Amino acid sequence: MQRFNDLADFSSEEIRGLIDLARRLERQPEPRALEGKVLSLLFLSPSLRTLTSFQAAMIRLGGGAFVVSPEMSIHGLESRSGIVMDGAAAEHIREAVPVIASYGDAIGIRAFAKRENLQADLDDREFNEIASLVGDKPLINMESAINHPCQSLADWKTLDDFEIPANGGRFVLSWAYHPKPLPLAVPAATVHMAAMRGMDVVVLRPEGFELPPAIMGKARAAAEASGGRVIETTDRREAMEGAHVIYAKSWSSTRYYTDRAGDKALREQLVDWCVDEPWFENARPDCRFMHCLPVRRGVVVADRILDGPRSIVIREAHNRMLVQMAVLYRMLKG
Amino acid sequence: MQRFNDLADFSSEEIRGLIDLARRLERQPEPRALEGKVLSLLFLSPSLRTLTSFQAAMIRLGGGAFVVSPEMSIHGLESRSGIVMDGAAAEHIREAVPVIASYGDAIGIRAFAKRENLQADLDDREFNEIASLVGDKPLINMESAINHPCQSLADWKTLDDFEIPANGGRFVLSWAYHPKPLPLAVPAATVHMAAMRGMDVVVLRPEGFELPPAIMGKARAAAEASGGRVIETTDRREAMEGAHVIYAKSWSSTRYYTDRAGDKALREQLVDWCVDEPWFENARPDCRFMHCLPVRRGVVVADRILDGPRSIVIREAHNRMLVQMAVLYRMLKG
Amino acid sequence: MQRFNDLADFSSEEIRGLIDLARRLERQPEPRALEGKVLSLLFLSPSLRTLTSFQAAMIRLGGGAFVVSPEMSIHGLESRSGIVMDGAAAEHIREAVPVIASYGDAIGIRAFAKRENLQADLDDREFNEIASLVGDKPLINMESAINHPCQSLADWKTLDDFEIPANGGRFVLSWAYHPKPLPLAVPAATVHMAAMRGMDVVVLRPEGFELPPAIMGKARAAAEASGGRVIETTDRREAMEGAHVIYAKSWSSTRYYTDRAGDKALREQLVDWCVDEPWFENARPDCRFMHCLPVRRGVVVADRILDGPRSIVIREAHNRMLVQMAVLYRMLKG
Repeated sequence: MQRFNDLADFSSEEIRGLIDLARRLERQPEPRALEGKVLSLLFLSPSLRTLTSFQAAMIRLGGGAFVVSPEMSIHGLESRSGIVMDGAAAEHIREAVPVIASYGDAIGIRAFAKRENLQADLDDREFNEIASLVGDKPLINMESAINHPCQSLADWKTLDDFEIPANGGRFVLSWAYHPKPLPLAVPAATVHMAAMRGMDVVVLRPEGFELPPAIMGKARAAAEASGGRVIETTDRREAMEGAHVIYAKSWSSTRYYTDRAGDKALREQLVDWCVDEPWFENARPDCRFMHCLPVRRGVVVADRILDGPRSIVIREAHNRMLVQMAVLYRMLKG
Repeated sequence: MQRFNDLADFSSEEIRGLIDLARRLERQPEPRALEGKVLSLLFLSPSLRTLTSFQAAMIRLGGGAFVVSPEMSIHGLESRSGIVMDGAAAEHIREAVPVIASYGDAIGIRAFAKRENLQADLDDREFNEIASLVGDKPLINMESAINHPCQSLADWKTLDDFEIPANGGRFVLSWAYHPKPLPLAVPAATVHMAAMRGMDVVVLRPEGFELPPAIMGKARAAAEASGGRVIETTDRREAMEGAHVIYAKSWSSTRYYTDRAGDKALREQLVDWCVDEPWFENARPDCRFMHCLPVRRGVVVADRILDGPRSIVIREAHNRMLVQMAVLYRMLKG
Repeated sequence: MQRFNDLADFSSEEIRGLIDLARRLERQPEPRALEGKVLSLLFLSPSLRTLTSFQAAMIRLGGGAFVVSPEMSIHGLESRSGIVMDGAAAEHIREAVPVIASYGDAIGIRAFAKRENLQADLDDREFNEIASLVGDKPLINMESAINHPCQSLADWKTLDDFEIPANGGRFVLSWAYHPKPLPLAVPAATVHMAAMRGMDVVVLRPEGFELPPAIMGKARAAAEASGGRVIETTDRREAMEGAHVIYAKSWSSTRYYTDRAGDKALREQLVDWCVDEPWFENARPDCRFMHCLPVRRGVVVADRILDGPRSIVIREAHNRMLVQMAVLYRMLKG
């Protein structure tokens, strides 16, 4: 495995193979599998779970990781081409990325969307540009403008862990209120993952927060291949009917993607999009609650949901480490 | 061992067993003892020795550690209950702590006193709340509002290393001047440790800096069991009479614990509480100087003491790593 | 090996032995060579390559490293002697350095020039003072006021990798424009390294940027022993005549070393010292471009040079890790 950038690059069987490997490595640790191996972790955006779970994963397999993160006293990194670097940035990604990549056996890169241009973000232009600098070094997408394959693989495993049906299971991806316009990476990756798993997927979101056609089209293609289905609605009751799981996530208004004021005006009318017990009225009684974390309590979701039996967010976050061990093992040991 | 939170949770024999284990691991390294094992280190307060010595300890035993610290670009962590998280903090400790704990085989947590309420700090309320979130994961207190067991275990070993007598050894815990009101964790842990070791313990401090009855009572109970003794005094000559060791440490005024102005007014009259050679006039000639570090030169203690033969602070700090290796070994290997 | 502080402390044969060892460890990894061994990394100045390559080096040899860096929430470190520490700094290097050293099997230290006094920097006074605090712990200079031996060892290996002749090879160390006055460490180490390798060395720099006699004298002594030669010039054509390699680096005006305004006035007239294709007119056709990185594009060097076939800066940076593995191996395993 040379790239772990998008679940769409793998077959369902390959995904299931990775999840099986994650289970095996949890059951039968292999603390020398990757001895002497190094993972470079380059964060151009903040992190908690990804940062810690990748370090833990490498230690568990006998290797190690080093971290480059934005708050380190590194020289600000320039990314524009053809620029005269007489300002604050003392280094260009064209040098920094190949060098950092060269110190590791694989490299993980995180670079959130800049939200300056929707099409550029949908095309994952910045991430692809950075990724083009790592040469033939194995590369892991640790969240880009439009993808988060480690989260999606962990989510798939979490659905399996709780025996939520693949074909026939109803998966609601719901927008939720948040004071800031957040990236599209998680909703885009999630709707595709659930569709690829063969689920009955509903995207529940207010007007103005439609997922772009490129995202919905990719998910629908995956659903077609897997026997799943993807629909969109603004109607909560309709969406939650018979749901096995609701996956909450806030994202930017796509109508006002680069217009902060427009997004804010629309968003402020939607503070009642906070997942709470009444949402589950016509769901299955054991309907679960998922979220990729971090989550704002009382804003995205009520305390009683997070603290109650529906929530599987801690296991979901724990699965990040387990599936990443499988990805690293496959990448570096085969 | 599931928790390393307080020396009072162990018998003297168990403490001596840990120190013996530390010596053995120094003499006979076991660089594969904890292979594939991960220590999660969660710092909600700053650190230098604890941060580095725990990482070093894990590497020496063949495992590794990852660090979460306040200056990282993580989302500020909220800790209040039932709050609507529409401010700066994007994550609650109720999610962050279980997740971070789940990535490790054990977790160390540091959370200094908030000094908003003396009783809350004496009860270690905040630390206990955080600790309740780690589930059954082995937990190490890396300094809480009222305890610092790793420091105390290192201090015990240091006293042994320099052959300072247990029963019959005179241990002076002395308040010292410092421009800021510092926590009670080290003095509380230290007076208990010396009492548990069976020493003749004197707490030397100015009026207004009395250690609270809960701290003194716990130390006296330990002294009773060990054949030691604990007294308090404001009289330096009396305290230092025949002393084997003086352990300097500044702490908040307990009379003005939450009243910063009151503390400041009292404290400013006490700049002469800087340990210097005249203090040792009626001590034993080889009386030693200890301090947990960091220490302000010329403020807490004179240069000639720190740079002279009385000072054993570097060995004391080095022992932090050695005893922590023993704690980790016992916790993760048995 | 107890100290890796200056290539001048070693014979050419010893340097070649280290480079051979670096090659062997790249070809035949020894992922258990340093199991259980710890490298302490103390950065008093910023870093990217050094920080990451040393961590990677230790992991590849089966050990690990911990990092102390200026942006960590450690208490500011005081370094002045005899001071009353009643200000911001809560810890003195006289405690911090021995403690940090004591947690490792070796320690790397970085402390850039303060540029308050040229003679003090030429004598490496600050670094030597810090180094005096590590006791008998093996020590690596990770860049001081006047030296950068890891960079020079990597540069030597890079010259070998590209089969640039030792005796007879023409090495141009050229000053280049940069908006800030940078330290002398790299030019001082580089001119000595190339001379020690037996090369025909030319220092090309504008008036006011002469390398001090102490630096040039040391390089000339090395050249004498190796059969090389060291000259200085302000004439670009003369310097580049038949050059095998140009090593670009900016540095402070030595005429205005502590006079920021004088340096600025002189420097601002020199923005045309940006290495570009016309510089190579009378060099050898395959003349290479080296730089220690980070490098400002369009300021120090034109994009087309960095992105073209002359540039060997990425391999040069990668060699940092490889040669440091050799140094660590020799130091900790023998």
